Amino acid sequence: MIKGRLKIIPLGGLGEVGKNMMLIEYLAPNKEMGPILIVDMGLRFPEEDMPGIDFIIPNTSYLKGRERDIVGMALTHGHYDHIGAIPYIIDKLWNPLILAGGLTKGIVIKRQDDFPNQPKLNIQEVKDGDIVKLPPFEVEFFRQNHNITDNFGLFIKTPVGNLIHTSDFKFDPSPVNEPPTDFEKLRRIGEKGILLLMSDSTRAEDEGRSISENTIMENLDLIFQQAPGRIVAATFSSLINRIQQVITLSEKYGRKVAVDGYSMKTNVEICKRLGYIKTKRGTIILPKDIDNYPANKVTIVCTGAQGEGQAVLMRMANKEHRFVRLRKGDTVIFSSSVVPGNERTVQILKDELYRQGTIVFHYKMMDIHAGGHAQKEELKEIIKIMKPKFFLPIHGQYSMLVNHAKIAEESGIQEKNIAVAETGQVVVASQKEIFISKETAPSNYIMVDGLGIGDVGEIVLRDRQNLSKDGMFVIVALVDKKTGRIRSSPDIISRGFVYLRESRQLLAETRKRVIIIVERATGSGGAVNWSYVKDNIRNKIGEFLYQRTKRRPMILPVVIEV
Amino acid sequence: MIKGRLKIIPLGGLGEVGKNMMLIEYLAPNKEMGPILIVDMGLRFPEEDMPGIDFIIPNTSYLKGRERDIVGMALTHGHYDHIGAIPYIIDKLWNPLILAGGLTKGIVIKRQDDFPNQPKLNIQEVKDGDIVKLPPFEVEFFRQNHNITDNFGLFIKTPVGNLIHTSDFKFDPSPVNEPPTDFEKLRRIGEKGILLLMSDSTRAEDEGRSISENTIMENLDLIFQQAPGRIVAATFSSLINRIQQVITLSEKYGRKVAVDGYSMKTNVEICKRLGYIKTKRGTIILPKDIDNYPANKVTIVCTGAQGEGQAVLMRMANKEHRFVRLRKGDTVIFSSSVVPGNERTVQILKDELYRQGTIVFHYKMMDIHAGGHAQKEELKEIIKIMKPKFFLPIHGQYSMLVNHAKIAEESGIQEKNIAVAETGQVVVASQKEIFISKETAPSNYIMVDGLGIGDVGEIVLRDRQNLSKDGMFVIVALVDKKTGRIRSSPDIISRGFVYLRESRQLLAETRKRVIIIVERATGSGGAVNWSYVKDNIRNKIGEFLYQRTKRRPMILPVVIEV
Repeated sequence: MIKGRLKIIPLGGLGEVGKNMMLIEYLAPNKEMGPILIVDMGLRFPEEDMPGIDFIIPNTSYLKGRERDIVGMALTHGHYDHIGAIPYIIDKLWNPLILAGGLTKGIVIKRQDDFPNQPKLNIQEVKDGDIVKLPPFEVEFFRQNHNITDNFGLFIKTPVGNLIHTSDFKFDPSPVNEPPTDFEKLRRIGEKGILLLMSDSTRAEDEGRSISENTIMENLDLIFQQAPGRIVAATFSSLINRIQQVITLSEKYGRKVAVDGYSMKTNVEICKRLGYIKTKRGTIILPKDIDNYPANKVTIVCTGAQGEGQAVLMRMANKEHRFVRLRKGDTVIFSSSVVPGNERTVQILKDELYRQGTIVFHYKMMDIHAGGHAQKEELKEIIKIMKPKFFLPIHGQYSMLVNHAKIAEESGIQEKNIAVAETGQVVVASQKEIFISKETAPSNYIMVDGLGIGDVGEIVLRDRQNLSKDGMFVIVALVDKKTGRIRSSPDIISRGFVYLRESRQLLAETRKRVIIIVERATGSGGAVNWSYVKDNIRNKIGEFLYQRTKRRPMILPVVIEV
Repeated sequence: MIKGRLKIIPLGGLGEVGKNMMLIEYLAPNKEMGPILIVDMGLRFPEEDMPGIDFIIPNTSYLKGRERDIVGMALTHGHYDHIGAIPYIIDKLWNPLILAGGLTKGIVIKRQDDFPNQPKLNIQEVKDGDIVKLPPFEVEFFRQNHNITDNFGLFIKTPVGNLIHTSDFKFDPSPVNEPPTDFEKLRRIGEKGILLLMSDSTRAEDEGRSISENTIMENLDLIFQQAPGRIVAATFSSLINRIQQVITLSEKYGRKVAVDGYSMKTNVEICKRLGYIKTKRGTIILPKDIDNYPANKVTIVCTGAQGEGQAVLMRMANKEHRFVRLRKGDTVIFSSSVVPGNERTVQILKDELYRQGTIVFHYKMMDIHAGGHAQKEELKEIIKIMKPKFFLPIHGQYSMLVNHAKIAEESGIQEKNIAVAETGQVVVASQKEIFISKETAPSNYIMVDGLGIGDVGEIVLRDRQNLSKDGMFVIVALVDKKTGRIRSSPDIISRGFVYLRESRQLLAETRKRVIIIVERATGSGGAVNWSYVKDNIRNKIGEFLYQRTKRRPMILPVVIEV
């Protein structure tokens, strides 16, 4: 009995970290198109070679003209790499039904406030164990530990077979702020028969198991016990459970808690309102009021553990914070890992904190941060529980996907039943086989820069990179139409190349050369090919400046006949 | 009996990693100046926020007018962060005597070839145990393990007391390519009485001991035993001993070795010529000849383990290498750590290698790289051996210096006898006390960009950063002198801002606004304040573009009266 096929289309998150979004399309026998379920709609932060870019979002061209086929979108949890692209994309998809946990819903709706022109979202709250029918799919949400509450794995029934999407997850026997992993329930799900397991690869290259939040709690407690002055706890604003830990410990040691940083304040507000963060009455104080309390009775929870330039911790370190000046005896806790690429800025921040005499704790010194992702042993365990026929590693750089595939093989899944696919590749699964199709979904980067979505492309980016290296050099030459001679001296505007005031001679020589190039062209008396003249200026002046400086500014000639 | 004081002046390397250079100045009683010994003259690589910059070199303004006082310079070893600034600085210091080990000398002289206008260096070779009198100083060179041969610590006799400068070092009981640490000798030096120990802080934040090169050798051997195809071993070209290991193992397993990458080839050449790298006849082959040998009989030693864009390994990964196309079964070994800041590029490189089906080994998977620096236990050991009265942590970020100072305290040195100083601070040591003076030596960054040394300053850098974020926008308006009206339409040249072809309307509106601004100014008929007009264009057009795009390109108005 042929039950058709599934197309699994990652629009983000496979072969990269971030912008997680996946399409699951059901193709009935002999059909080439069918209903589509969306999982997540996240953003990704730009790389170093993308100056000025705010975010990268999934390319949803595949869905253009297919809006009617979208049965709905399931959100796994409230982190921006899973929900952050919604305001840029959702209206183009005709605003489909969104299913989300309570906290996720709260964060998504709050974010929409920043986008006043967006339509009201069509969002429905789900709880652990809820089953939602989105024919031909049926989605069951099951709780998974991560480092934010209301994180759900998805058990998806389809006409072809049952799928598991793990979401970001880890197994935590003693988590904070939420119950431990319900292995009993996972086993019951596994017993229903899983055709395809899609599992989180973020830490597939790390041996062992993730650290329990309880260990973090114990270590933080040690720090709190001994801290002689104020405690500044910096972490991601999205680590809701970590924030709760800091609040709980502060209450234990009689400290008031000031929450600082825009995203941190927003998240704590939402969580308090919805009951996801619990505080005693009077615990939370305003940053401006911290000096009303003794130093050893104050905790500041804030953003900036990545050394972000404008975040709270950096402002404190740079003595630019409105209310807080760090001093000897203050304790600064970096309760987060360092995102790859941020190592230098975090080091610079740490140095500055040491210079001000603060006591610094970071995750390399003791376990005061746990990641939210399963490591090798946990990944093996979920494979054993789900016993899937097919396996698709999701969420992670390509090297992580490959190493996760290796774990699956070691766990008994046949190599031919494992697909290692990247964003934009189309994975096809029937009851018999899984393979990567020749078809691809468009997956080139859609960059968000200010109000522009997708309008910054390769050329603009390359120009920015070039401008940043050696600056630019504009030459404006006015040519007298009648005589063909340059009127007065060419104007030169340059930035980022050399300090102009100290380069008068270089500029004078450049002007001379420009005049020669132009007047040689006009001197013959015939018609002048101005684009040739401009090319000539670009090349010859470029070469001249390179010889003199070994730098290659971007040369932009403007020749105007008057 | 008063014997005067010493001024220890770090011109680089303290509170930063790189551009190591230190001055040791002897002040006789009642003198404010005296003879100066220089230790090292290194460069530092630029940070991410210094686009276009090649290197940063030490600021040697302190030595201006003091050239006669320089008694000589001792080089500890041949790494660029200890010798790389020589061609930019040495002639300004009147080309003083340089003392260096054989390999260091070879590397320094070879480098000078790239600077044909530089004078011939005045360089004298030293060996382990050599004592050179540079009155009032006497310098004894003693061998220290690192990861390049001819690495020397310095035992410096001065009228004030004996100093130790450890150089970069680690204790290795079973190194490769050189004898193990000679503890007996270190103890004999310690027994002479040490006033001040200056010791390498690079890994003062890491527990335990550094890994022995012998462990690395064993692990590399395991990889060589099993590699089914070609082996590509990527490492720093400066890790001479690691290169030797790869050659030795290749010979053991009957593999030919191709050396690739400019700096790698240069260093191997120097080392072979001077006898620091040993190969059997016929082992080394040219990269172009590798296809003449079976895959499992070839090793390629190359640069690019940091994911550097133009280095050999990246060219292989990008299929741009002239002779090598990677294929399934090839083994790629990253035998180096990842320099902070390079994590992302290394990840991207690794992903690409996995995509091509190669087997990848990196230092997080097994010990195939050892750093060259002593860790906590070794640092304690050298303090115990030298039993100094004073302690100055050198070489490292500020957090490392602070943690090294803590180690010294734990090892019994009194807090008041430890100075934690940074580049540009002046440390004063007498027989009685050590302290950081109020005097400072100029230490602002001297950046090398192409042929320019120190001509790129804050302003040029800031312009580069701004240009990279949102690009630039030049407006050229010609104003008729007589009528005050704009002639034809203003020219707009923009790069890195928006894709112009898709922004015609934005440009048209911008032109209109420019015309209004200019003609409002000229319309009154009186004298026109053109700089006011230009400011007006800059502000109003800037605001307009920001409203429309939420981007802030650099706006450069050119208004010309014709």
